[in-house]
Amino acid sequence: MKTIPYKTYLSEQQMPDAWQNLRADMPHCPPILHPGTLQPVTLDDLSHVFVEELAKQELSTEKFISIPGEVMDFYRMIRPSPLVRAYALEKALGTPARIYYKFEGTNTSGSHKLNSAVPQAYYAKQQGLTSLTTETGAGQWGTAMSMACVYYGIDLSVYMVKISSQQKPYRKAVMETYGASVTPSPSNTTNAGRAALAENPDTQGSLGNAISEALEAAMTRDNCRYVLGSVLQHVLLHQSVIGLEARAAMDSLEEYPDVVIGCAGGGSNLGGLIVTYAADKLAGKASPEIIAVEPASCPSLTRGKFAYDFGDVAKTTPLIKMYTLGSGFKPHANHAGGLRYHGMNTSLSQLYDDGLLHAKAVTQRSVFDAAITFARTEGTLPAPESAHAIRAAIDEALACKESGESKCILFGLSGTGYFDMQAYQDYLSGAMDDNIPGEETLQSGFASLPQIG
Amino acid sequence: MKTIPYKTYLSEQQMPDAWQNLRADMPHCPPILHPGTLQPVTLDDLSHVFVEELAKQELSTEKFISIPGEVMDFYRMIRPSPLVRAYALEKALGTPARIYYKFEGTNTSGSHKLNSAVPQAYYAKQQGLTSLTTETGAGQWGTAMSMACVYYGIDLSVYMVKISSQQKPYRKAVMETYGASVTPSPSNTTNAGRAALAENPDTQGSLGNAISEALEAAMTRDNCRYVLGSVLQHVLLHQSVIGLEARAAMDSLEEYPDVVIGCAGGGSNLGGLIVTYAADKLAGKASPEIIAVEPASCPSLTRGKFAYDFGDVAKTTPLIKMYTLGSGFKPHANHAGGLRYHGMNTSLSQLYDDGLLHAKAVTQRSVFDAAITFARTEGTLPAPESAHAIRAAIDEALACKESGESKCILFGLSGTGYFDMQAYQDYLSGAMDDNIPGEETLQSGFASLPQIG
Repeated sequence: MKTIPYKTYLSEQQMPDAWQNLRADMPHCPPILHPGTLQPVTLDDLSHVFVEELAKQELSTEKFISIPGEVMDFYRMIRPSPLVRAYALEKALGTPARIYYKFEGTNTSGSHKLNSAVPQAYYAKQQGLTSLTTETGAGQWGTAMSMACVYYGIDLSVYMVKISSQQKPYRKAVMETYGASVTPSPSNTTNAGRAALAENPDTQGSLGNAISEALEAAMTRDNCRYVLGSVLQHVLLHQSVIGLEARAAMDSLEEYPDVVIGCAGGGSNLGGLIVTYAADKLAGKASPEIIAVEPASCPSLTRGKFAYDFGDVAKTTPLIKMYTLGSGFKPHANHAGGLRYHGMNTSLSQLYDDGLLHAKAVTQRSVFDAAITFARTEGTLPAPESAHAIRAAIDEALACKESGESKCILFGLSGTGYFDMQAYQDYLSGAMDDNIPGEETLQSGFASLPQIG
Repeated sequence: MKTIPYKTYLSEQQMPDAWQNLRADMPHCPPILHPGTLQPVTLDDLSHVFVEELAKQELSTEKFISIPGEVMDFYRMIRPSPLVRAYALEKALGTPARIYYKFEGTNTSGSHKLNSAVPQAYYAKQQGLTSLTTETGAGQWGTAMSMACVYYGIDLSVYMVKISSQQKPYRKAVMETYGASVTPSPSNTTNAGRAALAENPDTQGSLGNAISEALEAAMTRDNCRYVLGSVLQHVLLHQSVIGLEARAAMDSLEEYPDVVIGCAGGGSNLGGLIVTYAADKLAGKASPEIIAVEPASCPSLTRGKFAYDFGDVAKTTPLIKMYTLGSGFKPHANHAGGLRYHGMNTSLSQLYDDGLLHAKAVTQRSVFDAAITFARTEGTLPAPESAHAIRAAIDEALACKESGESKCILFGLSGTGYFDMQAYQDYLSGAMDDNIPGEETLQSGFASLPQIG
């Protein structure tokens, strides 16, 4: 075994110059359907809503797609990210396991989201668009898009889930510092927003509803398109830089993980992290355990259905087959933040259905307990989203302590919690609870699923 | 000229294993005096207040002091920090200058402060102390000490300048997450606090007053000492890791700066950054321009006096010869944050007096203007403190554009502004002003200087 440094950085020359497409190795991955015809969507269908190059990538089955030079220029400002050996956490747990994490939180957006925001803004610019709309839940994606748009000279409107904009007042200020315009959602600026407010004037908003508003706004503006930071295939494609860098770094250390762990909301961080290891598994070359960790309050994999569903509450998107709680599922307003989405990326859903991906739901307070253990040993204050992966990694490491196994554990630390201090305060003061949805809440979500065929 | 990457990281093997003492090359640096006897303080004098090993370092004239292994373990979690070539900023400015910055903000404390917090907590633990007290202005030092203390198992009480605790509510939450106890200052928990409140119940606090409270608290507790995050020689010593890393990285790129720039409050980031270049200058080996950038609202170098003064408002510390506005100087409650201190480190003051260090005072709004230019090009949202250095670096680069010179500029980006969003909001909304102190305010500060000899 080589001497393992605390942190491993690739050189700029070693950074990947092409994204890897998980879907290329999954010909059985179900296509996106047009909601009217129920036929697979065409590039033309998608290009009305999405930036054209992104629509192409959404449908692509190529295994590798080159990263444009101007995107590489931005990536070189924010990447490579470090692969960290969690020596202090291992020592505190007294585990024989070797724990590594790929840390995506050293850029100002505070998370991996910037990896996809950069190419999305770049391709919009290439197409001659002048503005974009999007939504943000926890605020990480909105911040990332703000940073990317101001760099490439594109106007950005962000619909921010209302409860998040209240819990994280300064996230809005960051986006505005980068020149974006931010609207708490639901708002009275769109039909979708007005409908949600009419139904419930006190609604705290949801990611699905914010998507509806951003979509509608994009459709009604000139030279404008809608961009999304998770769930879709092209987002996972961009996020493959996480996994490609992690793999190159792990290989350089002569390490191959027994377990790969990521938090999962729409699946962008997890899908990016696991790309090469899932490909190994699909090719029958290796069998690392891959674990998606989701909040017990929004359990799309562990308690959802594998079905075609809309991406948004207003049911305006194409139909995506995914593990879903139904677009009408109303997650409790706790602090799972960016993981409060009703569905899960198609490729990841298919991997789960195939038994190649495991899923685990964890409760809110156990997540913050893990977050604080991590902060006080490894130094970095994690995002609550990322702390879902930490919880599972700690549990794996403690199981190793029990069994005496020296497993190699790799997890994704997708971001930092610097804008989540209200949540930490609530946890420390005992004001936080776990909010596991009852059977009735689940059934009410499933009732919103479209009836197909 | 070699191809210069965006970011240069040293390997862990290349990290410095000894701190470099700027004072070693400055035998004419004035000693600290005992306020009663007016004789140079002894180790025994200082050890009543400070951790003994830190007191030794405060008086040391050794050029290199080894970094203990357990401190190196923590440093390897948070260091090396990147040396960044600011290609995007250069392009936006259209300058022929080559701009580099040493970025200390990728750790959770958000700044360079952790470099000194780690050894301070470590030496306290080695001495068998069980608790420490300190003060914090902008919150970066308090956060850094919280992180270091929880790691080494030391209790920490932080006195936080009241106006900062109001402007940065979540800074307190971060410190508490790391297990520290935080008291807004002035408070009614100490004589110094009660005196300040009696004088002015509406006082917004000052760093000098918070120091008095923390000092008093340390003196009245068992097995407790006081720690400080700036101004003192041992702090600059620890911060030399910034400059040693920057120098090794610059050397590897075959670059030698024409200009080295740092923001300066008490001087810890600047003193750390310039250590090897100032040594070159003192030895007559090279003559890079070295620039200290301070807020026009608290201009200790550019408008202060080189005199013996107390470090705190209550006049309880030893006497330090420094450029000072007087411990009674009341900086306006604007957002210079961590730079609102009345004095400046002795070595830096001496360098300035010797003409080896230049100083520049910049106004608040011009600083935020530079901060936003930087954020929107380089991606990283800077701390307002650090943005003072950015302002000066941009001004140098624009002068190069004018003159056609291709200077090499190195500046210290000491931290990030993630907890400073209220200040950014105030700037963007036009609510911020420059607050340059009038002659009367200055004279009232000077009136508080001790009469010596």
